[in-house]
Amino acid sequence: MRLRDCAVHITGLGLMGASLALALRGKTAALTGSDIQKEVEKAALRDGVIDRIDGPSQADLVILAAPPEAILRLIPHLELKAGAVVMDLGSTKQRICDALDQLPDTLHAVGGHPMCGLAENGYSNALPTLYAGARFILCETERTNDHARNLAEQVIAAVGALPLWMPRAEHDQVAGAISHLPHLLSFVLMRIAMQMAKYDASVYELAAGGFDGATRLARTDETMITGMFLTNAEQLRSLVNLMHQHLDDLTSLLDSPEELSQELGEIVAARRAYTRRYGERMIT
Amino acid sequence: MRLRDCAVHITGLGLMGASLALALRGKTAALTGSDIQKEVEKAALRDGVIDRIDGPSQADLVILAAPPEAILRLIPHLELKAGAVVMDLGSTKQRICDALDQLPDTLHAVGGHPMCGLAENGYSNALPTLYAGARFILCETERTNDHARNLAEQVIAAVGALPLWMPRAEHDQVAGAISHLPHLLSFVLMRIAMQMAKYDASVYELAAGGFDGATRLARTDETMITGMFLTNAEQLRSLVNLMHQHLDDLTSLLDSPEELSQELGEIVAARRAYTRRYGERMIT
Repeated sequence: MRLRDCAVHITGLGLMGASLALALRGKTAALTGSDIQKEVEKAALRDGVIDRIDGPSQADLVILAAPPEAILRLIPHLELKAGAVVMDLGSTKQRICDALDQLPDTLHAVGGHPMCGLAENGYSNALPTLYAGARFILCETERTNDHARNLAEQVIAAVGALPLWMPRAEHDQVAGAISHLPHLLSFVLMRIAMQMAKYDASVYELAAGGFDGATRLARTDETMITGMFLTNAEQLRSLVNLMHQHLDDLTSLLDSPEELSQELGEIVAARRAYTRRYGERMIT
Repeated sequence: MRLRDCAVHITGLGLMGASLALALRGKTAALTGSDIQKEVEKAALRDGVIDRIDGPSQADLVILAAPPEAILRLIPHLELKAGAVVMDLGSTKQRICDALDQLPDTLHAVGGHPMCGLAENGYSNALPTLYAGARFILCETERTNDHARNLAEQVIAAVGALPLWMPRAEHDQVAGAISHLPHLLSFVLMRIAMQMAKYDASVYELAAGGFDGATRLARTDETMITGMFLTNAEQLRSLVNLMHQHLDDLTSLLDSPEELSQELGEIVAARRAYTRRYGERMIT
């Protein structure tokens, strides 16, 4: 089935859902959407982001674009027509794919996680170019067939992203290290600055680009982050343990200047090689 | 004494020293420089960044723009004319100001720390606009008099920065939280990714703007970072202890979704308020 013949429904019209809708405009037979905030639904209709406010029951393809915990709550209650394909955009995959496995066998499903975003999310920040050039992880479920696989890849091609299939557990481990842990550290750094600012007003005066960049992820809506942390809690806990070890490792080198410099030098070399290969992507 | 009547010498022509020289062009009676790398000295002379390659012995104002550990080694061996003012650009202030206190009383001295930089440093990245709009911390020493205070403020005005006087210990505590700890975390995040990448090649494929921003400080030259860490080791150790506590604090909330969301929400609100007040500064 070709995407342009599909009725597509997007559940959740925040940054990710509305940006996807904008990128899919004119490439589907119909594009409906819904959001728990009625004013967001109205704005999306008014702005031409969706054709109609409607539920997913008549859609050929349903894209779940809510925070991960909301996706987990939605999946068992989906009432869809036989043969419909479900795809999600949740930032963790193990628990969501486990839930997708349990869908009736009249439905098809693929887990998804686009590796893009903005520090400030919500409908009003949506951009038609958000997905352009981004990696888009896809995970097979027990409800994945060729039809679902093909439709998911058509969506990804239509929004200009690059598909990468990966087992759900591997996704959560890697995403924990390169996304969830950086988010947690960003929150901790901001929390330390907040506490210090209570008794020293110069904290924010001294902060500059380094601090801004290191805490930028702490601007992301807490509902999204809470869901991200809770649905990948086990990985996050083990990464925090790893974090404790690495912090102690590096601070123990404060007594051995040459070793410290060599260790940091290897990290600098790797980070610069990474820049040469992937460029420097900014989130604003 | 007016800056434009001063012979100024800059010791160290990396990112900070060469950018300062570029911003001071035409605003001093003479501008000499030196660097431990002979090819950097030659390039600075060729590019017109300095008037002459020379030592500091005849200068009215000597600016130490080397990594903090090198500054500590330089101070006891300075051979300057009577009445000369010494100022440094080191990223920590307690130990450097303690050393400046010990200069002969024929000399004057002010500790300094400009809150600006780029992820990739070195002479070749110098920019005449690097200091424009940046906070420039100044610390009094036992060798600070009105002449030194005034000359330091003239330099800061000439490069477009904003002076902020502060006790050395307060500087190191605050800079530890908003600069040194973010650097350390950036290195730890990159180190975790490097280890994971050894057995899972998808790590760098999945990484995107969030990871790039969170690890950007790990591109800074290791000599600079080693000096920053070693000269503020005590503060850094106590911040790492604080870090352990906050990490455990926040991960303990993984069992209490509502509390976690509320706690994260307070941090998001503070970070967004910070953006509204200070903007978002990028280091590229």
